[in-house]
Amino acid sequence: MDKKHLGNPREARAAIRAGRWRGDTIGVAPGYVQGNLVILPRDWADEFLRFCHYNPKPCPIVGMTEPGDPIARTLGHDVDLRSDLGRYRIWRDGEMVEEVASLEGLWTDDLVGFVIGCSLSFEQALMDNGIVLRHHVEPGQGVGVYRTNIDCTPAGRFKGKLVVSMRPLQPADAIRAVQICSRFPSVHGAPVHFGDPAAIGIADVYRSDFGYDGGLIELRAGEVPVFWACGVTPQSAVLDSRPPLCITHVPGYMLVTDVPNHSLASF
Amino acid sequence: MDKKHLGNPREARAAIRAGRWRGDTIGVAPGYVQGNLVILPRDWADEFLRFCHYNPKPCPIVGMTEPGDPIARTLGHDVDLRSDLGRYRIWRDGEMVEEVASLEGLWTDDLVGFVIGCSLSFEQALMDNGIVLRHHVEPGQGVGVYRTNIDCTPAGRFKGKLVVSMRPLQPADAIRAVQICSRFPSVHGAPVHFGDPAAIGIADVYRSDFGYDGGLIELRAGEVPVFWACGVTPQSAVLDSRPPLCITHVPGYMLVTDVPNHSLASF
Repeated sequence: MDKKHLGNPREARAAIRAGRWRGDTIGVAPGYVQGNLVILPRDWADEFLRFCHYNPKPCPIVGMTEPGDPIARTLGHDVDLRSDLGRYRIWRDGEMVEEVASLEGLWTDDLVGFVIGCSLSFEQALMDNGIVLRHHVEPGQGVGVYRTNIDCTPAGRFKGKLVVSMRPLQPADAIRAVQICSRFPSVHGAPVHFGDPAAIGIADVYRSDFGYDGGLIELRAGEVPVFWACGVTPQSAVLDSRPPLCITHVPGYMLVTDVPNHSLASF
Repeated sequence: MDKKHLGNPREARAAIRAGRWRGDTIGVAPGYVQGNLVILPRDWADEFLRFCHYNPKPCPIVGMTEPGDPIARTLGHDVDLRSDLGRYRIWRDGEMVEEVASLEGLWTDDLVGFVIGCSLSFEQALMDNGIVLRHHVEPGQGVGVYRTNIDCTPAGRFKGKLVVSMRPLQPADAIRAVQICSRFPSVHGAPVHFGDPAAIGIADVYRSDFGYDGGLIELRAGEVPVFWACGVTPQSAVLDSRPPLCITHVPGYMLVTDVPNHSLASF
Protein backbone atom coordinates (compact mmCIF):
# COMPACT_ATOMS: atom_id res chain seq x y z
CA MET A 1 0.00 0.00 0.00
CA ASP A 2 1.23 3.44 -0.91
CA LYS A 3 0.63 6.73 0.89
CA LYS A 4 -0.78 8.16 -2.31
CA HIS A 5 -3.79 5.87 -1.85
CA LEU A 6 -4.44 7.45 1.52
CA GLY A 7 -5.68 10.82 0.24
CA ASN A 8 -9.08 10.52 1.86
CA PRO A 9 -9.05 10.80 5.66
CA ARG A 10 -11.87 8.30 6.21
CA GLU A 11 -10.18 5.71 4.03
CA ALA A 12 -6.85 6.44 5.71
CA ARG A 13 -8.32 5.72 9.14
CA ALA A 14 -9.97 2.56 7.83
CA ALA A 15 -6.61 1.38 6.44
CA ILE A 16 -4.86 2.11 9.73
CA ARG A 17 -7.63 0.44 11.76
CA ALA A 18 -7.48 -2.70 9.60
CA GLY A 19 -3.68 -2.83 9.76
CA ARG A 20 -3.34 -2.29 6.03
CA TRP A 21 -1.32 0.88 6.66
CA ARG A 22 1.40 0.70 9.31
CA GLY A 23 3.51 3.70 8.31
CA ASP A 24 3.51 7.25 9.54
CA THR A 25 0.88 9.81 8.55
CA ILE A 26 3.14 12.54 7.16
CA GLY A 27 1.58 13.40 3.82
CA VAL A 28 -1.49 11.23 4.41
CA ALA A 29 -4.84 12.90 3.57
CA PRO A 30 -3.27 16.22 2.65
CA GLY A 31 -5.43 19.19 3.52
CA TYR A 32 -6.99 17.55 6.56
CA VAL A 33 -6.18 18.23 10.20
CA GLN A 34 -3.96 15.73 11.96
CA GLY A 35 -3.72 15.73 15.71
CA ASN A 36 -1.53 14.82 18.66
CA LEU A 37 -3.17 12.41 21.10
CA VAL A 38 -3.17 12.54 24.89
CA ILE A 39 -5.38 10.10 26.82
CA LEU A 40 -5.68 10.43 30.61
CA PRO A 41 -7.71 9.01 33.48
CA ARG A 42 -10.70 11.16 34.26
CA ASP A 43 -9.38 12.61 37.50
CA TRP A 44 -6.35 13.93 35.62
CA ALA A 45 -8.32 15.03 32.57
CA ASP A 46 -10.02 17.99 34.21
CA GLU A 47 -6.70 19.45 35.24
CA PHE A 48 -5.30 18.81 31.78
CA LEU A 49 -8.18 20.67 30.19
CA ARG A 50 -7.46 23.62 32.48
CA PHE A 51 -3.75 23.44 31.59
CA CYS A 52 -4.61 23.54 27.89
CA HIS A 53 -7.04 26.38 28.44
CA TYR A 54 -4.38 28.43 30.21
CA ASN A 55 -1.77 27.68 27.54
CA PRO A 56 -3.65 27.75 24.24
CA LYS A 57 -0.67 28.37 21.96
CA PRO A 58 1.20 25.14 22.79
CA CYS A 59 -1.97 23.20 23.75
CA PRO A 60 -4.73 23.96 21.23
CA ILE A 61 -7.45 21.35 21.71
CA VAL A 62 -9.10 20.51 18.40
CA GLY A 63 -11.22 17.73 19.87
CA MET A 64 -11.84 15.73 23.05
CA THR A 65 -14.06 12.90 24.20
CA GLU A 66 -16.60 12.48 26.96
CA PRO A 67 -15.22 10.31 29.81
CA GLY A 68 -15.23 6.66 28.74
CA ASP A 69 -16.24 7.39 25.16
CA PRO A 70 -13.45 6.45 22.72
CA ILE A 71 -15.11 8.20 19.77
CA ALA A 72 -13.97 11.74 18.90
CA ARG A 73 -17.37 12.81 17.62
CA THR A 74 -16.49 16.31 16.43
CA LEU A 75 -13.54 15.22 14.31
CA GLY A 76 -15.24 13.14 11.65
CA HIS A 77 -17.07 9.93 10.87
CA ASP A 78 -16.52 7.18 13.46
CA VAL A 79 -13.16 8.47 14.68
CA ASP A 80 -12.17 5.78 17.19
CA LEU A 81 -9.21 6.74 19.36
CA ARG A 82 -8.65 3.05 20.26
CA SER A 83 -7.86 1.91 16.75
CA ASP A 84 -7.42 4.77 14.34
CA LEU A 85 -3.83 5.70 15.06
CA GLY A 86 -1.00 3.53 13.79
CA ARG A 87 1.12 3.47 16.92
CA TYR A 88 0.52 4.39 20.55
CA ARG A 89 2.81 4.85 23.52
CA ILE A 90 1.70 3.66 26.93
CA TRP A 91 3.16 5.60 29.85
CA ARG A 92 2.81 4.49 33.47
CA ASP A 93 3.92 6.84 36.24
CA GLY A 94 5.62 8.99 33.57
CA GLU A 95 7.70 6.14 32.11
CA MET A 96 7.13 4.72 28.66
CA VAL A 97 6.39 1.00 29.10
CA GLU A 98 5.14 -0.11 25.72
CA GLU A 99 4.40 0.81 22.12
CA VAL A 100 1.26 -0.78 20.72
CA ALA A 101 -0.71 -0.71 17.46
CA SER A 102 -4.14 -0.61 19.12
CA LEU A 103 -5.69 0.18 22.49
CA GLU A 104 -7.80 -2.99 22.49
CA GLY A 105 -7.90 -4.26 26.06
CA LEU A 106 -6.52 -0.97 27.39
CA TRP A 107 -9.44 1.40 27.00
CA THR A 108 -11.61 1.82 30.09
CA ASP A 109 -14.69 3.80 31.06
CA ASP A 110 -12.41 6.07 33.04
CA LEU A 111 -10.40 7.46 30.13
CA VAL A 112 -10.66 10.82 28.37
CA GLY A 113 -9.03 11.53 25.00
CA PHE A 114 -7.64 14.87 23.88
CA VAL A 115 -6.66 15.68 20.31
CA ILE A 116 -4.31 18.64 20.04
CA GLY A 117 -3.59 20.62 16.89
CA CYS A 118 -0.25 19.98 15.24
CA SER A 119 2.21 21.81 13.07
CA LEU A 120 1.36 19.84 9.93
CA SER A 121 -1.70 22.06 9.47
CA PHE A 122 0.12 25.37 9.58
CA GLU A 123 3.01 23.95 7.58
CA GLN A 124 0.51 23.06 4.85
CA ALA A 125 -0.80 26.63 4.91
CA LEU A 126 2.74 27.99 4.66
CA MET A 127 3.56 25.73 1.72
CA ASP A 128 0.25 26.59 0.01
CA ASN A 129 1.49 30.18 0.18
CA GLY A 130 4.73 29.33 -1.54
CA ILE A 131 6.99 29.30 1.51
CA VAL A 132 9.57 26.54 1.18
CA LEU A 133 9.98 24.35 4.28
CA ARG A 134 13.16 22.47 3.55
CA HIS A 135 12.42 19.54 5.85
CA HIS A 136 9.47 18.70 3.60
CA VAL A 137 11.50 18.65 0.41
CA GLU A 138 15.04 17.70 1.38
CA PRO A 139 15.76 14.32 2.95
CA GLY A 140 17.66 14.22 6.22
CA GLN A 141 16.47 17.60 7.43
CA GLY A 142 14.36 17.63 10.58
CA VAL A 143 12.69 20.29 12.69
CA GLY A 144 14.36 20.97 16.01
CA VAL A 145 12.18 20.90 19.13
CA TYR A 146 13.45 22.70 22.23
CA ARG A 147 12.54 23.26 25.86
CA THR A 148 12.59 27.03 26.47
CA ASN A 149 13.00 28.98 29.71
CA ILE A 150 9.39 30.23 29.44
CA ASP A 151 7.04 28.85 32.10
CA CYS A 152 3.62 27.64 31.10
CA THR A 153 0.75 28.72 33.34
CA PRO A 154 0.35 25.79 35.75
CA ALA A 155 -2.92 23.97 36.45
CA GLY A 156 -3.21 21.52 39.32
CA ARG A 157 -0.47 18.90 38.96
CA PHE A 158 0.59 20.12 35.51
CA LYS A 159 3.35 22.61 34.97
CA GLY A 160 6.39 22.92 32.77
CA LYS A 161 8.36 24.94 30.29
CA LEU A 162 7.06 25.97 26.90
CA VAL A 163 8.42 23.67 24.18
CA VAL A 164 8.93 25.18 20.73
CA SER A 165 9.78 24.00 17.24
CA MET A 166 12.04 25.96 14.90
CA ARG A 167 11.98 26.59 11.17
CA PRO A 168 14.53 28.83 9.42
CA LEU A 169 13.03 31.51 7.18
CA GLN A 170 14.09 34.63 5.34
CA PRO A 171 12.68 37.72 7.15
CA ALA A 172 10.08 38.47 4.43
CA ASP A 173 8.86 34.86 4.63
CA ALA A 174 8.81 35.08 8.43
CA ILE A 175 6.57 38.17 8.22
CA ARG A 176 4.27 36.32 5.81
CA ALA A 177 4.33 33.29 8.13
CA VAL A 178 3.10 35.44 11.03
CA GLN A 179 0.19 36.57 8.85
CA ILE A 180 -0.67 33.07 7.69
CA CYS A 181 -0.28 31.33 11.04
CA SER A 182 -2.29 34.03 12.85
CA ARG A 183 -5.31 32.69 11.00
CA PHE A 184 -4.84 29.31 12.66
CA PRO A 185 -4.93 29.71 16.46
CA SER A 186 -6.02 26.10 16.87
CA VAL A 187 -2.79 24.78 15.36
CA HIS A 188 -0.37 26.86 17.45
CA GLY A 189 -1.05 30.22 15.74
CA ALA A 190 1.62 32.84 15.15
CA PRO A 191 5.24 32.17 16.10
CA VAL A 192 6.24 33.04 19.66
CA HIS A 193 9.77 34.21 18.91
CA PHE A 194 12.33 34.72 16.18
CA GLY A 195 16.00 35.50 16.14
CA ASP A 196 18.29 35.01 19.12
CA PRO A 197 17.65 31.49 20.52
CA ALA A 198 19.33 32.39 23.83
CA ALA A 199 16.63 35.00 24.48
CA ILE A 200 14.22 32.13 25.21
CA GLY A 201 16.76 29.84 26.82
CA ILE A 202 17.89 27.77 23.85
CA ALA A 203 21.65 27.29 23.97
CA ASP A 204 22.11 25.52 20.64
CA VAL A 205 19.58 25.31 17.80
CA TYR A 206 21.49 22.36 16.38
CA ARG A 207 20.71 20.30 19.47
CA SER A 208 17.06 19.23 19.58
CA ASP A 209 15.66 18.38 23.03
CA PHE A 210 12.88 16.15 21.70
CA GLY A 211 11.81 13.96 18.89
CA TYR A 212 13.63 13.97 15.64
CA ASP A 213 17.07 12.46 16.00
CA GLY A 214 18.39 12.95 12.47
CA GLY A 215 20.06 16.06 11.10
CA LEU A 216 18.35 19.35 11.78
CA ILE A 217 17.55 21.97 9.15
CA GLU A 218 20.50 24.30 8.87
CA LEU A 219 20.20 28.05 9.04
CA ARG A 220 21.39 29.51 5.77
CA ALA A 221 22.69 33.01 5.04
CA GLY A 222 20.04 35.65 5.61
CA GLU A 223 17.69 33.29 7.43
CA VAL A 224 16.46 33.75 10.98
CA PRO A 225 15.27 30.96 13.26
CA VAL A 226 11.50 31.25 13.80
CA PHE A 227 10.00 29.50 16.82
CA TRP A 228 6.46 28.18 17.19
CA ALA A 229 4.78 26.81 20.32
CA CYS A 230 4.82 23.03 20.02
CA GLY A 231 2.40 20.24 20.91
CA VAL A 232 5.17 18.45 22.76
CA THR A 233 4.55 21.01 25.56
CA PRO A 234 1.40 19.35 26.96
CA GLN A 235 2.83 15.84 26.62
CA SER A 236 5.98 16.90 28.43
CA ALA A 237 4.00 18.60 31.21
CA VAL A 238 1.77 15.55 31.64
CA LEU A 239 4.59 13.05 31.81
CA ASP A 240 6.58 15.20 34.25
CA SER A 241 3.61 14.95 36.60
CA ARG A 242 3.79 11.13 36.44
CA PRO A 243 0.13 10.15 36.09
CA PRO A 244 -0.51 6.45 36.71
CA LEU A 245 -1.54 6.05 33.05
CA CYS A 246 -1.12 8.22 29.98
CA ILE A 247 -1.47 7.16 26.36
CA THR A 248 -0.04 9.21 23.49
CA HIS A 249 0.56 8.82 19.79
CA VAL A 250 4.06 8.05 18.52
CA PRO A 251 5.55 11.16 16.85
CA GLY A 252 4.61 11.12 13.16
CA TYR A 253 1.78 8.63 13.70
CA MET A 254 -0.98 11.16 14.17
CA LEU A 255 -4.76 10.99 14.27
CA VAL A 256 -6.08 11.80 10.80
CA THR A 257 -9.36 13.69 11.07
CA ASP A 258 -12.09 14.64 8.59
CA VAL A 259 -11.66 18.34 9.46
CA PRO A 260 -10.28 20.37 6.52
CA ASN A 261 -7.32 22.53 7.50
CA HIS A 262 -9.07 25.48 5.85
CA SER A 263 -11.98 25.21 8.26
CA LEU A 264 -9.65 26.16 11.11
CA ALA A 265 -8.88 29.56 9.59
CA SER A 266 -10.15 32.30 11.85
CA PHE A 267 -10.41 34.84 9.04
CA MET B 1 -3.97 77.31 21.66
CA ASP B 2 -3.03 73.87 22.90
CA LYS B 3 -2.99 70.61 20.97
CA LYS B 4 -5.32 69.13 23.54
CA HIS B 5 -8.06 71.39 22.17
CA LEU B 6 -7.60 69.83 18.75
CA GLY B 7 -9.12 66.46 19.56
CA ASN B 8 -11.83 66.73 16.93
CA PRO B 9 -10.59 66.49 13.33
CA ARG B 10 -13.12 68.97 11.92
CA GLU B 11 -12.23 71.56 14.55
CA ALA B 12 -8.54 70.87 14.03
CA ARG B 13 -8.84 71.60 10.29
CA ALA B 14 -10.85 74.76 11.02
CA ALA B 15 -8.14 75.95 13.43
CA ILE B 16 -5.43 75.26 10.85
CA ARG B 17 -7.43 76.90 8.05
CA ALA B 18 -8.00 80.04 10.16
CA GLY B 19 -4.35 80.19 11.20
CA ARG B 20 -5.24 79.64 14.86
CA TRP B 21 -3.07 76.49 14.87
CA ARG B 22 0.34 76.70 13.24
CA GLY B 23 2.05 73.76 14.87
CA ASP B 24 2.51 70.19 13.67
CA THR B 25 -0.27 67.60 13.76
CA ILE B 26 1.46 64.89 15.79
CA GLY B 27 -1.07 63.99 18.45
CA VAL B 28 -3.83 66.12 16.92
CA ALA B 29 -7.26 64.42 16.64
CA PRO B 30 -6.01 61.11 18.00
CA GLY B 31 -7.76 58.11 16.48
CA TYR B 32 -8.27 59.79 13.09
CA VAL B 33 -6.33 59.12 9.91
CA GLN B 34 -3.70 61.68 8.95
CA GLY B 35 -2.27 61.69 5.47
CA ASN B 36 0.73 62.65 3.39
CA LEU B 37 -0.07 65.06 0.56
CA VAL B 38 1.13 64.96 -3.03
CA ILE B 39 -0.37 67.40 -5.57
CA LEU B 40 0.57 67.09 -9.24
CA PRO B 41 -0.45 68.51 -12.60
CA ARG B 42 -3.00 66.35 -14.32
CA ASP B 43 -0.71 64.92 -16.96
CA TRP B 44 1.58 63.62 -14.22
CA ALA B 45 -1.25 62.47 -11.96
CA ASP B 46 -2.31 59.50 -14.07
CA GLU B 47 1.19 58.09 -13.99
CA PHE B 48 1.40 58.72 -10.28
CA LEU B 49 -1.81 56.82 -9.69
CA ARG B 50 -0.35 53.90 -11.63
CA PHE B 51 2.85 54.11 -9.61
CA CYS B 52 0.86 53.97 -6.36
CA HIS B 53 -1.24 51.13 -7.68
CA TYR B 54 1.88 49.10 -8.50
CA ASN B 55 3.48 49.85 -5.13
CA PRO B 56 0.66 49.74 -2.61
CA LYS B 57 2.77 49.13 0.49
CA PRO B 58 4.76 52.39 0.31
CA CYS B 59 2.03 54.32 -1.59
CA PRO B 60 -1.38 53.50 -0.10
CA ILE B 61 -3.84 56.10 -1.42
CA VAL B 62 -6.47 56.89 1.21
CA GLY B 63 -8.03 59.66 -0.87
CA MET B 64 -7.63 61.67 -4.09
CA THR B 65 -9.39 64.49 -5.87
CA GLU B 66 -10.92 64.91 -9.30
CA PRO B 67 -8.74 67.11 -11.54
CA GLY B 68 -9.12 70.73 -10.51
CA ASP B 69 -11.21 69.98 -7.44
CA PRO B 70 -9.35 70.92 -4.24
CA ILE B 71 -11.85 69.14 -1.98
CA ALA B 72 -11.01 65.60 -0.81
CA ARG B 73 -14.62 64.50 -0.70
CA THR B 74 -14.13 61.00 0.71
CA LEU B 75 -12.03 62.11 3.67
CA GLY B 76 -14.52 64.15 5.66
CA HIS B 77 -16.52 67.34 5.81
CA ASP B 78 -15.22 70.12 3.55
CA VAL B 79 -11.62 68.87 3.46
CA ASP B 80 -9.91 71.57 1.40
CA LEU B 81 -6.41 70.66 0.29
CA ARG B 82 -5.64 74.37 -0.36
CA SER B 83 -6.03 75.50 3.23
CA ASP B 84 -6.34 72.61 5.65
CA LEU B 85 -2.69 71.71 6.11
CA GLY B 86 -0.44 73.89 8.23
CA ARG B 87 2.58 74.00 5.93
CA TYR B 88 3.17 73.11 2.30
CA ARG B 89 6.29 72.70 0.22
CA ILE B 90 6.31 73.91 -3.38
CA TRP B 91 8.66 71.99 -5.68
CA ARG B 92 9.48 73.13 -9.23
CA ASP B 93 11.44 70.80 -11.50
CA GLY B 94 12.23 68.66 -8.46
CA GLU B 95 13.69 71.51 -6.39
CA MET B 96 12.01 72.91 -3.30
CA VAL B 97 11.43 76.62 -3.94
CA GLU B 98 9.15 77.69 -1.11
CA GLU B 99 7.30 76.75 2.05
CA VAL B 100 3.86 78.29 2.39
CA ALA B 101 0.95 78.18 4.84
CA SER B 102 -1.77 78.08 2.18
CA LEU B 103 -2.14 77.28 -1.52
CA GLU B 104 -4.17 80.41 -2.21
CA GLY B 105 -3.14 81.72 -5.62
CA LEU B 106 -1.37 78.44 -6.44
CA TRP B 107 -4.24 76.05 -7.00
CA THR B 108 -5.30 75.63 -10.63
CA ASP B 109 -7.88 73.63 -12.55
CA ASP B 110 -5.05 71.39 -13.69
CA LEU B 111 -4.07 70.00 -10.28
CA VAL B 112 -4.86 66.63 -8.72
CA GLY B 113 -4.40 65.91 -5.01
CA PHE B 114 -3.39 62.57 -3.50
CA VAL B 115 -3.59 61.76 0.19
CA ILE B 116 -1.42 58.82 1.17
CA GLY B 117 -1.72 56.83 4.38
CA CYS B 118 0.91 57.49 7.01
CA SER B 119 2.58 55.68 9.85
CA LEU B 120 0.74 57.63 12.56
CA SER B 121 -2.29 55.38 12.01
CA PHE B 122 -0.48 52.08 12.48
CA GLU B 123 1.60 53.52 15.31
CA GLN B 124 -1.65 54.37 17.09
CA ALA B 125 -2.85 50.80 16.60
CA LEU B 126 0.45 49.46 17.98
CA MET B 127 0.26 51.72 21.02
CA ASP B 128 -3.40 50.81 21.59
CA ASN B 129 -2.15 47.24 21.82
CA GLY B 130 0.37 48.13 24.50
CA ILE B 131 3.47 48.20 22.32
CA VAL B 132 5.79 50.98 23.46
CA LEU B 133 7.14 53.17 20.67
CA ARG B 134 9.90 55.10 22.38
CA HIS B 135 9.90 58.03 19.96
CA HIS B 136 6.37 58.82 21.15
CA VAL B 137 7.28 58.90 24.82
CA GLU B 138 10.94 59.90 25.03
CA PRO B 139 12.08 63.28 23.76
CA GLY B 140 14.92 63.44 21.27
CA GLN B 141 14.23 60.04 19.74
CA GLY B 142 13.23 59.99 16.10
CA VAL B 143 12.35 57.32 13.56
CA GLY B 144 15.03 56.67 10.94
CA VAL B 145 13.94 56.74 7.30
CA TYR B 146 16.15 54.96 4.76
CA ARG B 147 16.46 54.42 1.03
CA THR B 148 16.74 50.64 0.47
CA ASN B 149 18.20 48.73 -2.48
CA ILE B 150 14.70 47.44 -3.38
CA ASP B 151 13.30 48.81 -6.65
CA CYS B 152 9.71 49.96 -6.79
CA THR B 153 7.74 48.88 -9.84
CA PRO B 154 8.09 51.83 -12.24
CA ALA B 155 5.19 53.61 -13.94
CA GLY B 156 5.85 56.08 -16.73
CA ARG B 157 8.26 58.71 -15.52
CA PHE B 158 8.17 57.48 -11.92
CA LYS B 159 10.65 55.02 -10.53
CA GLY B 160 12.83 54.72 -7.47
CA LYS B 161 13.94 52.72 -4.49
CA LEU B 162 11.63 51.65 -1.70
CA VAL B 163 12.02 53.96 1.31
CA VAL B 164 11.42 52.43 4.74
CA SER B 165 11.10 53.60 8.32
CA MET B 166 12.52 51.64 11.25
CA ARG B 167 11.28 51.00 14.77
CA PRO B 168 13.15 48.78 17.25
CA LEU B 169 11.04 46.06 18.88
CA GLN B 170 11.49 42.95 20.96
CA PRO B 171 10.76 39.86 18.79
CA ALA B 172 7.45 39.08 20.53
CA ASP B 173 6.30 42.67 19.94
CA ALA B 174 7.48 42.46 16.34
CA ILE B 175 5.33 39.36 15.82
CA ARG B 176 2.36 41.18 17.36
CA ALA B 177 3.13 44.20 15.19
CA VAL B 178 2.90 42.05 12.05
CA GLN B 179 -0.53 40.89 13.18
CA ILE B 180 -1.76 44.37 14.01
CA CYS B 181 -0.34 46.12 10.95
CA SER B 182 -1.62 43.42 8.60
CA ARG B 183 -5.10 44.72 9.38
CA PHE B 184 -4.15 48.11 7.97
CA PRO B 185 -3.02 47.71 4.36
CA SER B 186 -3.97 51.33 3.61
CA VAL B 187 -1.41 52.67 6.07
CA HIS B 188 1.58 50.61 4.86
CA GLY B 189 0.44 47.24 6.25
CA ALA B 190 2.81 44.65 7.66
CA PRO B 191 6.54 45.36 7.93
CA VAL B 192 8.61 44.53 4.88
CA HIS B 193 11.75 43.39 6.71
CA PHE B 194 13.30 42.90 10.11
CA GLY B 195 16.78 42.13 11.34
CA ASP B 196 19.88 42.68 9.24
CA PRO B 197 19.67 46.20 7.71
CA ALA B 198 22.34 45.33 5.13
CA ALA B 199 20.02 42.70 3.63
CA ILE B 200 17.94 45.55 2.18
CA GLY B 201 20.85 47.87 1.46
CA ILE B 202 20.94 49.94 4.65
CA ALA B 203 24.54 50.46 5.73
CA ASP B 204 23.89 52.21 9.05
CA VAL B 205 20.59 52.39 10.91
CA TYR B 206 21.90 55.35 12.88
CA ARG B 207 22.13 57.42 9.70
CA SER B 208 18.68 58.46 8.44
CA ASP B 209 18.45 59.31 4.72
CA PHE B 210 15.37 61.51 5.09
CA GLY B 211 13.45 63.70 7.40
CA TYR B 212 14.14 63.68 11.07
CA ASP B 213 17.50 65.22 11.83
CA GLY B 214 17.60 64.72 15.60
CA GLY B 215 18.79 61.62 17.43
CA LEU B 216 17.42 58.30 16.23
CA ILE B 217 15.86 55.67 18.46
CA GLU B 218 18.60 53.38 19.67
CA LEU B 219 18.41 49.61 19.41
CA ARG B 220 18.50 48.14 22.89
CA ALA B 221 19.54 44.65 23.99
CA GLY B 222 17.23 41.99 22.59
CA GLU B 223 15.57 44.34 20.12
CA VAL B 224 15.53 43.88 16.37
CA PRO B 225 15.10 46.66 13.83
CA VAL B 226 11.71 46.34 12.12
CA PHE B 227 11.22 48.09 8.78
CA TRP B 228 7.98 49.39 7.30
CA ALA B 229 7.38 50.74 3.80
CA CYS B 230 7.28 54.53 4.11
CA GLY B 231 5.22 57.29 2.49
CA VAL B 232 8.42 59.11 1.63
CA THR B 233 8.76 56.58 -1.22
CA PRO B 234 6.21 58.21 -3.56
CA GLN B 235 7.42 61.73 -2.76
CA SER B 236 10.98 60.71 -3.46
CA ALA B 237 10.01 59.01 -6.76
CA VAL B 238 8.01 62.02 -7.85
CA LEU B 239 10.72 64.57 -7.10
CA ASP B 240 13.39 62.44 -8.78
CA SER B 241 11.34 62.69 -11.97
CA ARG B 242 11.42 66.52 -11.73
CA PRO B 243 7.84 67.45 -12.58
CA PRO B 244 7.37 71.17 -13.37
CA LEU B 245 5.22 71.53 -10.23
CA CYS B 246 4.67 69.33 -7.19
CA ILE B 247 3.15 70.36 -3.87
CA THR B 248 3.62 68.31 -0.70
CA HIS B 249 3.02 68.69 3.01
CA VAL B 250 5.91 69.47 5.33
CA PRO B 251 6.82 66.36 7.38
CA GLY B 252 4.75 66.37 10.58
CA TYR B 253 2.20 68.84 9.19
CA MET B 254 -0.22 66.29 7.84
CA LEU B 255 -3.76 66.42 6.53
CA VAL B 256 -6.12 65.57 9.40
CA THR B 257 -9.13 63.64 8.09
CA ASP B 258 -12.50 62.66 9.56
CA VAL B 259 -11.76 58.97 8.86
CA PRO B 260 -11.37 56.94 12.07
CA ASN B 261 -8.23 54.80 12.09
CA HIS B 262 -10.37 51.82 13.07
CA SER B 263 -12.39 52.10 9.86
CA LEU B 264 -9.25 51.18 7.90
CA ALA B 265 -8.95 47.79 9.59
CA SER B 266 -9.42 45.06 7.03
CA PHE B 267 -10.53 42.50 9.62
